[in-house]
Amino acid sequence: MAQATLSPSSRSTIRRGKDRARTDRAELHEVLDAALICHLGVLVDGAPRVLPTGYGRLGDTLYLHGSTGARSLREAADGEVCVSVTLVDGVVYARSAFHFSVNYRSAVIHGRPRPVTDADEKWEALRVLTEHLAPGSWDHVRQPSRRDLAATSVLALDLGEAAVKIRSGSPRDEPEDVAAAAAWAGVLPLRRSWGEPEPSDDLPDTVETPVHVTNRKQP
Amino acid sequence: MAQATLSPSSRSTIRRGKDRARTDRAELHEVLDAALICHLGVLVDGAPRVLPTGYGRLGDTLYLHGSTGARSLREAADGEVCVSVTLVDGVVYARSAFHFSVNYRSAVIHGRPRPVTDADEKWEALRVLTEHLAPGSWDHVRQPSRRDLAATSVLALDLGEAAVKIRSGSPRDEPEDVAAAAAWAGVLPLRRSWGEPEPSDDLPDTVETPVHVTNRKQP
Repeated sequence: MAQATLSPSSRSTIRRGKDRARTDRAELHEVLDAALICHLGVLVDGAPRVLPTGYGRLGDTLYLHGSTGARSLREAADGEVCVSVTLVDGVVYARSAFHFSVNYRSAVIHGRPRPVTDADEKWEALRVLTEHLAPGSWDHVRQPSRRDLAATSVLALDLGEAAVKIRSGSPRDEPEDVAAAAAWAGVLPLRRSWGEPEPSDDLPDTVETPVHVTNRKQP
Repeated sequence: MAQATLSPSSRSTIRRGKDRARTDRAELHEVLDAALICHLGVLVDGAPRVLPTGYGRLGDTLYLHGSTGARSLREAADGEVCVSVTLVDGVVYARSAFHFSVNYRSAVIHGRPRPVTDADEKWEALRVLTEHLAPGSWDHVRQPSRRDLAATSVLALDLGEAAVKIRSGSPRDEPEDVAAAAAWAGVLPLRRSWGEPEPSDDLPDTVETPVHVTNRKQP
């Protein structure tokens, strides 16, 4: 079932910057697992709408969720969507304004999501969504009540139609600009890191910060 | 001309999580100035497409650019777009899976972009785009040649129709979960910082790393 490669469709075939295109499905998974949120594009009243939201991945299925009252999720359940996940790894300083760029890892997924109605799959999807946002939390916290479940919509998006682009390394400058050596060129890396956990004011001192929070793997 | 407040239209009026909605135009500017990239949503063959891209802001105009050959930019120039800018500030750990959240700053802009054809405005837009990505660089590097300009399309998007949402602080848990004190609750902040500049391999030792790179304001 799982394909080893990407880009089976015209719109998920990368045309611009082909040298940045990746075709290994493992790289899609890596990008999705490394980022925290996605940008979900849906069609509302004939115009695109792009909203940041959480997600979780299980194999080649991406799960999205939201309030049953959220219009964007209702629209998403009723047509084509596009999910974009981007990690910015640095700013690429070139010798010419034209060649400035960004080092990044990007995944773009197209598809028609399926509303998740089966109770077991919905439960598993919510586990995956929670564990994506906060690994180790599902077994630590109170799991969804019947009321929580009723208030939450879950969508499943197949990862079949996806494109991955990764840019890394130095600027690609014009030879004459390199020769002129009139400007600095290189990369300023952008790092992400977790700060110190900040317990809620209303948390009793007796509740220690758990290891899955204090030792969370750096993003 | 500049409005002091946001949300003049139905679709830029926030309905979900109203307590997170901001209406001060200065907060829109702050979110846009703090982030590096946006996610641009366009309509392609009747389906939404969401792509990460750079931008720059001048007053209440957002500038986007890309290769003249890029289809997404051609489509953007020909209809409604949505630009979404998101900064993730931390993960909100709640006592129940249902209340997990993210601290973030988000701007969503709707509009119909205008192709920038005036030479002076295009030049200024490219300056703004470059300075957004890499402050201090425009005067340091080779500015666009005639050929660079011909290869670049620029779009202007008015910031008139925009929504800003900001979430900060602790989780909002159910009173019974707070009382149970059975799980940790709080925020794990996500920090961004610049790493050490990495000069290009082909950069002569005589070119020192300039101050606008070494002393870049933390993101």
